[in-house]
Amino acid sequence: MFVFEEQEIRKYISINREIIEQIEGGFTKLARKEVNLPPILRMDFPLYDGEVDVKTAYVQGMASFAIKISSGFFQNHILGLPSLSGMMILLSAKTGLTEALLLDNGYLTDVRTAAAGAVAANYLAKELVDVAGVIGTGMQARVQMEALYLVRPFKKLLVYGRNRENAERYRKEMESKLPVKIIMAESVEEVVRKSDVVVTTTPSTEPLIRAEWLHPGLHITAMGSDAEHKQEIDPLIFQKVDVVVCDVKEQSFRLGELHHAKEEIEMADVLEIGEITAKQKLGRGNDQQITICDLTGTGVQDTVCANYAFNLLKKAAHL
Amino acid sequence: MFVFEEQEIRKYISINREIIEQIEGGFTKLARKEVNLPPILRMDFPLYDGEVDVKTAYVQGMASFAIKISSGFFQNHILGLPSLSGMMILLSAKTGLTEALLLDNGYLTDVRTAAAGAVAANYLAKELVDVAGVIGTGMQARVQMEALYLVRPFKKLLVYGRNRENAERYRKEMESKLPVKIIMAESVEEVVRKSDVVVTTTPSTEPLIRAEWLHPGLHITAMGSDAEHKQEIDPLIFQKVDVVVCDVKEQSFRLGELHHAKEEIEMADVLEIGEITAKQKLGRGNDQQITICDLTGTGVQDTVCANYAFNLLKKAAHL
Repeated sequence: MFVFEEQEIRKYISINREIIEQIEGGFTKLARKEVNLPPILRMDFPLYDGEVDVKTAYVQGMASFAIKISSGFFQNHILGLPSLSGMMILLSAKTGLTEALLLDNGYLTDVRTAAAGAVAANYLAKELVDVAGVIGTGMQARVQMEALYLVRPFKKLLVYGRNRENAERYRKEMESKLPVKIIMAESVEEVVRKSDVVVTTTPSTEPLIRAEWLHPGLHITAMGSDAEHKQEIDPLIFQKVDVVVCDVKEQSFRLGELHHAKEEIEMADVLEIGEITAKQKLGRGNDQQITICDLTGTGVQDTVCANYAFNLLKKAAHL
Repeated sequence: MFVFEEQEIRKYISINREIIEQIEGGFTKLARKEVNLPPILRMDFPLYDGEVDVKTAYVQGMASFAIKISSGFFQNHILGLPSLSGMMILLSAKTGLTEALLLDNGYLTDVRTAAAGAVAANYLAKELVDVAGVIGTGMQARVQMEALYLVRPFKKLLVYGRNRENAERYRKEMESKLPVKIIMAESVEEVVRKSDVVVTTTPSTEPLIRAEWLHPGLHITAMGSDAEHKQEIDPLIFQKVDVVVCDVKEQSFRLGELHHAKEEIEMADVLEIGEITAKQKLGRGNDQQITICDLTGTGVQDTVCANYAFNLLKKAAHL
């Protein structure tokens, strides 16, 4: 059994076109029914504003499958500790024996989540994207824009965060990473009205984006909500947009934005991103349509990402 | 984060009265609704006759909770590999951060499963047990009898296994462990007819014990079945016995013997072992009754056992 620490994993695994393609392949296999994806195991710790999730999936053709543990305890900052942590355990799909521990503290989750955002944008955003917008200034606000830039090399990045200081730090960091102009927006509304693609990355529990701000050609990826009580999108938006997509219907209607939109849209009118990448369904039809993608995060991404990382790490270590 | 290997864990953790008491305490808390016990995450690999389970539970008052991964791939012997493996990951119940990896390859599962058997026998078997019987000759057939001996110091042990060689090996090993006479039975029937307590420990997929073999005073613990297709007990037995107990009703009716006995017995007529240890319900009423306990294995046991092991291991390592 191999054990890899976060530092080593960060050294060899980054957000690039390859991992985006791999994640796309995972979604495609999911649509082709080549994936076994059990429901998430979840436990809450209301006393400490905490939660722990375990995700897994078996993807046909992959040597190993990941079991991913991720925890979020949102009072940890009081103790000077990180809120999020986690690891992936890679098991052989042939023998069940543990092959590797990827002690990534959630880094690979950042990567695979960003990659899913890029897959969504690649199939749902207009071909030409000038302005990208992001709501939130945390880790996902960073990696989502890095990944998006690889599939839609935008020129301007509009960012909105409630905390001015964090937003300023975001601007500085991202200016060093992407050759684009970064503009601090005054409001969520400004970001939505002025952007071609908007990614929401917050743990909000009430809608941030209102239906009246939508405009032709817009694509929204909402990746913040992954629990019943979280919400970033006004449910009325689902009535107004032309194409509604998610990662896994059953899960998005339980944990994602769609959970709050059961009266606005039926499951039958929602596509899964894999159906589009597998060319079973059409995504965006023209530059005037408005599209939205609700991502909750799936075990498919974890298994794909862990296999990808393990192969690179083995190669790097000459194993 | 601490990492403990199997060898170290085996050195410091053994089947004793303390772990049996701890496991009993876990069941009691479960009955008192002081446990958060999410459903098992499970994935099957029919191609390799494999399965993987993830169990967890939060027990109020415990500093940490375990997430346990266990896999069983039943063609591994062809490759010269063990069928069963697993590990426990211990996370802080206050911060969600990983505290320890217990790389026990399933050893702690053996311990906590045996301890649950002892709890069941302690509350359900007659006070005086002369003859114990066991069906199967694998690891659980060993540890169940070790644990049973601590609560009911029997004088004779009847064992039945299909494979004569394995049974002979079992006899030799157990003779060195327990000061009892070990007798190789000719049949399951012989074991059941002649024993005061019978523990079934096989992965059987069809009933091994028939209703007509039962006799007054008998207690049966069936711990082999933990999946829909597994079965050791003739469902008619549930009509015939006086007291039917399980670890977790919802789970036993899904994965245990009770899964096959839905027409023979209603959920309302089944007790959970924690209701008995918590003194909410009565177990055995007199020496003539026949009792049965269907154990499927729960995350409560894992969290209790992992906390117990971690504390001992820290002490041993002067941490």
